Amino acid sequence: MAAHCPRALARFVRQLHRTRALQCRSPGRAIPCLIRHFSGSVPSQQTSEATTTADTDAVASHPKQIKYTSESYPSLKRDPKYSEISSEHVEFFKGILGGDTAVLDGVTRDAGDDLEGYNSDWMRKYRGHTRLVVKPKSTEEVSKVLEYCNDNMLAVVPQGGNSGLVGGSVPVFDEIVISTRRMNNIRSFDEVSGTLVVDAGCILEVVDNFLAGKNHIFPLDLGAKGSCHIGGNVATNAGGLRLLRYGSLHGNVLGIEAVLPDGTIVDDLSKLRKNNTGYDLKQLFIGGEGTIGLITAVSVVCPQRPKAINVAYFGVESFEKVQQAYIEAKSQLSEILSAFELMDGLSQDYVHQVTGNKRPLEGRHPFYCLVETSGSNTEHDNEKLEHFLESVMGSEIVSDGVLAQDETQVRSLWGWREGISEAIGHFGGTYKYDLSIPLPELYSLVEETRKRLASAGLVGDDDSHPCVGVVGYGHMGDSNLHLNVLVRRYAREVEQALEPWVYEWIKKRNGSISAEHGLGVAKKAYIGYSRSETMIRLMKQIKDLYDPKGIMNPYKYI
Amino acid sequence: MAAHCPRALARFVRQLHRTRALQCRSPGRAIPCLIRHFSGSVPSQQTSEATTTADTDAVASHPKQIKYTSESYPSLKRDPKYSEISSEHVEFFKGILGGDTAVLDGVTRDAGDDLEGYNSDWMRKYRGHTRLVVKPKSTEEVSKVLEYCNDNMLAVVPQGGNSGLVGGSVPVFDEIVISTRRMNNIRSFDEVSGTLVVDAGCILEVVDNFLAGKNHIFPLDLGAKGSCHIGGNVATNAGGLRLLRYGSLHGNVLGIEAVLPDGTIVDDLSKLRKNNTGYDLKQLFIGGEGTIGLITAVSVVCPQRPKAINVAYFGVESFEKVQQAYIEAKSQLSEILSAFELMDGLSQDYVHQVTGNKRPLEGRHPFYCLVETSGSNTEHDNEKLEHFLESVMGSEIVSDGVLAQDETQVRSLWGWREGISEAIGHFGGTYKYDLSIPLPELYSLVEETRKRLASAGLVGDDDSHPCVGVVGYGHMGDSNLHLNVLVRRYAREVEQALEPWVYEWIKKRNGSISAEHGLGVAKKAYIGYSRSETMIRLMKQIKDLYDPKGIMNPYKYI
Repeated sequence: MAAHCPRALARFVRQLHRTRALQCRSPGRAIPCLIRHFSGSVPSQQTSEATTTADTDAVASHPKQIKYTSESYPSLKRDPKYSEISSEHVEFFKGILGGDTAVLDGVTRDAGDDLEGYNSDWMRKYRGHTRLVVKPKSTEEVSKVLEYCNDNMLAVVPQGGNSGLVGGSVPVFDEIVISTRRMNNIRSFDEVSGTLVVDAGCILEVVDNFLAGKNHIFPLDLGAKGSCHIGGNVATNAGGLRLLRYGSLHGNVLGIEAVLPDGTIVDDLSKLRKNNTGYDLKQLFIGGEGTIGLITAVSVVCPQRPKAINVAYFGVESFEKVQQAYIEAKSQLSEILSAFELMDGLSQDYVHQVTGNKRPLEGRHPFYCLVETSGSNTEHDNEKLEHFLESVMGSEIVSDGVLAQDETQVRSLWGWREGISEAIGHFGGTYKYDLSIPLPELYSLVEETRKRLASAGLVGDDDSHPCVGVVGYGHMGDSNLHLNVLVRRYAREVEQALEPWVYEWIKKRNGSISAEHGLGVAKKAYIGYSRSETMIRLMKQIKDLYDPKGIMNPYKYI
Repeated sequence: MAAHCPRALARFVRQLHRTRALQCRSPGRAIPCLIRHFSGSVPSQQTSEATTTADTDAVASHPKQIKYTSESYPSLKRDPKYSEISSEHVEFFKGILGGDTAVLDGVTRDAGDDLEGYNSDWMRKYRGHTRLVVKPKSTEEVSKVLEYCNDNMLAVVPQGGNSGLVGGSVPVFDEIVISTRRMNNIRSFDEVSGTLVVDAGCILEVVDNFLAGKNHIFPLDLGAKGSCHIGGNVATNAGGLRLLRYGSLHGNVLGIEAVLPDGTIVDDLSKLRKNNTGYDLKQLFIGGEGTIGLITAVSVVCPQRPKAINVAYFGVESFEKVQQAYIEAKSQLSEILSAFELMDGLSQDYVHQVTGNKRPLEGRHPFYCLVETSGSNTEHDNEKLEHFLESVMGSEIVSDGVLAQDETQVRSLWGWREGISEAIGHFGGTYKYDLSIPLPELYSLVEETRKRLASAGLVGDDDSHPCVGVVGYGHMGDSNLHLNVLVRRYAREVEQALEPWVYEWIKKRNGSISAEHGLGVAKKAYIGYSRSETMIRLMKQIKDLYDPKGIMNPYKYI
């Protein structure tokens, strides 16, 4: 907090002193995992803003209890054009990669549980049947592996930290998993330009910790940072928490080294901020989800690490005013604004109810916002943030608010945003949608969904109604809404009320049915709601160009 | 200036009061336009940081005196696969576009000088032979035009503001010019998200003025902003002055509408910051230089317009210290740093000599830097900038400096950077190279070029030596060096000393032979110095995919 504390803000400060740190606790009752779209329990290193899952209902504690994707999606059939993996193939891989550390062989022997971690995703929604995992150590080894697979019609799945949300990084049938986990060197970092070059298998948090020692920051932050690989981040065009400030990977990735299915090494690992010499082909791999090639290394421009982080949390009476507050935040906080998160009143009710934590603000408001600033001067940033709050409170855009006093309170306030997903999971199950919507209409979808379900008689307080409520929250600054429909149990009528209605609603507004999670298995069927037939045709053209035999990550994407 | 003025900075402030505004004046003597690489006179709305031109020596006051590109590049031959334009073709275009305002017909009548502005570029280095210019008003019209051209094997050149630096926007032979100048509507702007949608033919300055009224800024600034089109900016992936702050167009362009040669409309005009639904095909058009399609509209995310602009100019004793100053600027100015420009001592000598303006600093320094900050709070920014200068002067990284006191002084200091190109043009001609080089070695090329030319006996004060000197300057923050070799006259031995040596030097350091200007005609032959055979092969594959008949902007790019 800056030295002076204007009167208008005194209340903010006093209030936060009463705020307790958020601690998620058990809701005290067992809630049956009944529904198809259940979001499951969430490992601590993961965000759980998961996508809607179309055809899985499996949530289990042991991998072997996870339903196979091939059963959840009965329409998917193993394409007979792919070869069955033989002992001869395994011998080849052992020969070029050097034995047991690099090849997990479930073909010629029982690899038992070892394979399960590669077959199943962290959400326990997707499970494949692979019997072979290869772990090349270098780009050249990846090249040899892919060339051999292409020549022998062996389907493959590139796998990084396996922390995706749409089932893109695990096999569906017996595709060979090519894991990047042994390619984990930080190749170079130039402190003057901030240019970092890393192997694809480097873990985001490891890289960010390395950069912290150099006063730099990776321009991407994710809940899954403790396990996700940089290569996977780039392959899925991960968005995350810093996008508002640092922009997308399409702007921050300077170069990519990748291997095409035929073994060609795409040597586009430029360290230059400017290089106007031809088509920017690397962009196709950013968000390509491993369907046209396997990323082996990336170079990224990394900004200076901010010295000051400040957080404010406030209540707003209408979405109209939320938009006004966002405009004011952009105008007044401008270069230091690093997050503007939206949480509706119901979402905060649930966090309060589940965690038992005292609310940061007195009373209840229809909307809450969390604003974070990151800058190079604590005093300046405090002053800007205070001035912003004075201004939006003075003009009655914001009704009430608190400012974090220290790092603990910063974490506590973030808890009211980051704790939503876990809190609402306690009520049963959730239909989750990760959507981009033009800002003016962002919240309308939540309201319309509520009306729609209510008028169908699906929402109520007692067990006779399948729906508990509809919650909206997300990255206001990125126009990214998480629409969550909380249900007591799976009910076909709820799903029929929601789909394809939600997707049609998105289509009418030129929104995106997958803002940041990608397509994978989960969204493959729905791309037509966000992309025209022309665009899908042009995408398929690119897929056919780079992967004419179709060995890269089949059954997914487009 | 902030209210307080620390002692360490008093000198800065005093000095600038003595600084006169830079005004370029005639050097007072006629300098013959002798050399091949002459940079020519520079229209006021253009920067003249032009590329080296490989095969042109034409600099003339009247378009008809400009040498034809086909003569300057005798290796280029008109491909007989393209049809000759007939009156029947002209009738078709008049039929669909509606007559004389939309079709400039030099086929069935004498269009005289009207065609010259479309045949010649602003630098007067490139000149084509077109006899037909079409000016569609809508995307649908572009689609009809291109489909017809594709069906009838008519080659075309997309043309925006025709302000490019590599001859990419004018025909070489009789390619039909498709001008975007009648497609100039600002389609929409959302003040909440900052998302702007504009037709390709909107002029950058017009759009930026429009945004100024909305307190936003276009995330790109160029010397040519008064004439360049947004579509051309995107097609050439223009870099410009704001890249350090706002990043590249690959990050800022949210969507593109374009027409493929076969008439297909690529409807990828998303307004969303996040949209992970398939390959990001629009990226291929950013920097594609009109070789795979014609951009008809773009959507761009625009930041808040900064309320405060500050500029400092200072002298540094070594490139080592320039790098230290840059690291400090990044660290201390961080989020408000919007430019860090490098000018070597010789470049400033020439500006001083040609303009006669008093230098901003006493004495002479081997290097000068211009630092600009842009932020939302003048007082905070001043304080940061002052603190930065105190710190770099206190630690003897910077020897001396000045801070601009007002907008006039901001422009005056920028004049010492922006006036370089015009100043050095007065000494005869210039071999100009626009290069990206990893920062630690950025200036080594200038030093090595000096040594190389000196040891060959090519540099001296009298007329017996062809070279006057070697100057280095550029966008330090983007690793973008402008290497300029000033010569009294064209001399084959100078060129032989420079090429391919400069390109080989760049290649060894994985630099770029075209940082921001693109390839066009000028750099087509040299792409191999910045891109591997694999990358070139993959680029040609993309060209063949989208433009199998090769009608789009032939004889250029790759």
